[in-house]
Amino acid sequence: MSALHAELAWVGGAVRRDVRIDCQGERIASVRPDAAPAAHARRLTGLVVPGLANAHSHAFHRALRARTHQGAGDFWAWREAMYALADALDPERYRRLARAVYAEMAQAGITAVAEFHYVHHDPRGRAYADPNAMGEALVAAAAEAGVRLTLLDGCYLRGGFDEPRLEGPQRRFGDADVDAWAARAEALGERPGLRRGAAIHSVRAVPPQAQETVAAWAQARGLPLHVHVSEQPAENAACHAALGRTPTQVLAEAGALGPRTTAVHATHLTQGDLALLGGTTTAACLCPTTERELADGIGPASDLAAAGSPLCVGSDSHAVIDLLEEARAIELDERLATLARGHHAPEALLAAATTQGHTRLGWDVALEEGALADLIAIDLASPRTAGATAETAVAHAVFAATASDVTDVIVGGRPLVTEGRHRTLDVAGELAAAQAELRDATR
Amino acid sequence: MSALHAELAWVGGAVRRDVRIDCQGERIASVRPDAAPAAHARRLTGLVVPGLANAHSHAFHRALRARTHQGAGDFWAWREAMYALADALDPERYRRLARAVYAEMAQAGITAVAEFHYVHHDPRGRAYADPNAMGEALVAAAAEAGVRLTLLDGCYLRGGFDEPRLEGPQRRFGDADVDAWAARAEALGERPGLRRGAAIHSVRAVPPQAQETVAAWAQARGLPLHVHVSEQPAENAACHAALGRTPTQVLAEAGALGPRTTAVHATHLTQGDLALLGGTTTAACLCPTTERELADGIGPASDLAAAGSPLCVGSDSHAVIDLLEEARAIELDERLATLARGHHAPEALLAAATTQGHTRLGWDVALEEGALADLIAIDLASPRTAGATAETAVAHAVFAATASDVTDVIVGGRPLVTEGRHRTLDVAGELAAAQAELRDATR
Repeated sequence: MSALHAELAWVGGAVRRDVRIDCQGERIASVRPDAAPAAHARRLTGLVVPGLANAHSHAFHRALRARTHQGAGDFWAWREAMYALADALDPERYRRLARAVYAEMAQAGITAVAEFHYVHHDPRGRAYADPNAMGEALVAAAAEAGVRLTLLDGCYLRGGFDEPRLEGPQRRFGDADVDAWAARAEALGERPGLRRGAAIHSVRAVPPQAQETVAAWAQARGLPLHVHVSEQPAENAACHAALGRTPTQVLAEAGALGPRTTAVHATHLTQGDLALLGGTTTAACLCPTTERELADGIGPASDLAAAGSPLCVGSDSHAVIDLLEEARAIELDERLATLARGHHAPEALLAAATTQGHTRLGWDVALEEGALADLIAIDLASPRTAGATAETAVAHAVFAATASDVTDVIVGGRPLVTEGRHRTLDVAGELAAAQAELRDATR
Repeated sequence: MSALHAELAWVGGAVRRDVRIDCQGERIASVRPDAAPAAHARRLTGLVVPGLANAHSHAFHRALRARTHQGAGDFWAWREAMYALADALDPERYRRLARAVYAEMAQAGITAVAEFHYVHHDPRGRAYADPNAMGEALVAAAAEAGVRLTLLDGCYLRGGFDEPRLEGPQRRFGDADVDAWAARAEALGERPGLRRGAAIHSVRAVPPQAQETVAAWAQARGLPLHVHVSEQPAENAACHAALGRTPTQVLAEAGALGPRTTAVHATHLTQGDLALLGGTTTAACLCPTTERELADGIGPASDLAAAGSPLCVGSDSHAVIDLLEEARAIELDERLATLARGHHAPEALLAAATTQGHTRLGWDVALEEGALADLIAIDLASPRTAGATAETAVAHAVFAATASDVTDVIVGGRPLVTEGRHRTLDVAGELAAAQAELRDATR
């Protein structure tokens, strides 16, 4: 039994003072506001909220940060750079890079991450001795960094609607067919700190019948299913040309939408798409800093929420790892698109970055009895947040704080980050070393 | 004579290694790349660049940060909250708040700030014993915080095109007429660390003939002139209804455009406006985080630059004080508007946040012989920037670093911030105290 004592905590939708949180093993045994601190309690200042849930990650993209801005690089130029990087990965290099990236996430308050994983095989597309060697590298990386991992095994079978095969750098993404994908996905076993899930890379990369198989596989096992949906207009146009439908319609027909499904991006949607996503309570994972980075555009966040799609957020390409920035960007970018303020309450944005994300990753995280004891403290007395009061604590956390203001991270009742520092890993040092190693490998 | 030694510095448009910077008094005596470090030199790691220039500030808005997001508050609701806050200011309270805000800026790497100042008189509109008591409060605040100040004395004469008088909270913004404005502006003398300038609040608040007077006053003295231009569509519509012209056209006819003029925001422009601004080399000060905050929209940054308007940036309402975020947001928000990447090179964005801003504030700051020795070091080995190399240092500074990554700030050759901390002020503590005092005063 361990005890935490929060100066302020976000409990049951409200900010409460002097909150005592008792933990039993990795779960919360009780949450008591207005409590006297236990003598042995770990004191947490600032605002305590559930750990942040990163609902969309491609860990290796971290090595592209600030490296694709020269000249007029469009999305496809960016993708070429990304493919060159993917080509340099092997299980050991990927483990070291991902460990550093997940540790950066931990320091930013992220306690669980959904890795949308599709770099499965060697650069020529041949299976490693363990066909899940790359997935196992990610599992090891997350365990070493101390964050929970939902490993979304990505099905990626073709280059495009008119490209039935995978060529060049895409070869390592694919399995022989969807049954080979399922056999490999099945072989990776769950363990503490790990949840499995499935991913359909996109309607471009997975034919409709294979989408059905992946969706059925996830549904039969009660596992999360994630899919990239309508990130860019070109993707919609190609889908319409090939199948006469929107990506959302195609996924709906494949039985891939539903309460365990998350549509990633969901940027360029029709009214019909919104009704399909909301009507099936498919979640929408917005990745606003990546959508800025890749010039994807501004998605219809309010319309999605109004239609019935829970929102969550992801740092995706890791141009930035700061889920507070992602959360406020939902509101701020919608202001830019509509020239009006006030679409999303700060509390709704915080829920998107925490509890709603965990649900879609398969983790039961909340500041309540019985839930996993994953929580963070956000400094309300930094230069950015100074001026916060209990009444504005959530708004200051969402609109003024940054990842730098996360002082404490607790996972399963145990401290992972204290005073803003990962307790076991030199985050910046590991990030620099892992990227240097990859640069050497691509030269 | 003092010496600095930069591991990497941005000199003459390129990143150079081992740069020795000798200072004489407050100016740079020499800049020598590939130099051996002097024994007594202060070592600066990371990337050294000129100090950041904050070309647009309303210091008191800092107290609104994260306090206007509840419900569907539109721009005008935000403005009501801003007016209530303005009403609570007096010279002493404003000095304390502004000192904290300028110290927050200093810690974020800002070495000079243009304060667009229009809260001149007491709440009923009567002059203080010293009619520039509020301006003097800002001068003292900047001096105590250690940053250079360009005090833009704002002319604000009416409530709107159809409101010839100032009412309620606006009363303290105004002078009896433009001559009274000029007499008061004239009375405030320059001194070390202070430059004077003029501001036309907006075409709404200053009639055309008075605009002419303000512009002529600034021009006769060779001083900067700043003006809010076309921040929102409603402002353009009101101007067109009243005068049959765009705000930019009205300012052009008043002789208010030119190489010492800065148009702040410049968000909603016609092709004709772009030609007028660019043709007169009027600068455009973009404030992207405020334009997100206030739902202003996305301005035509590329078109402005192409037309001939130098770009600079400001933190304006201080929803965020991070000029690196402002600089990258120019590019990122334009990506959202156009669905294309690559509008502004990282070097152009860094120039906007540094040298181009200083020019419009009236300070000669650059990493070159004879310029003021105002410079900062940006950490390239933080969790955000790790992975940077000399080749990508500028891109990492602009696209990956945040205000938290500014480790050292030198103003006039003397250290103001070291290890990320202001050397004399407790920034967060002062911010909290000054805001608490204002909240008490508004209760």
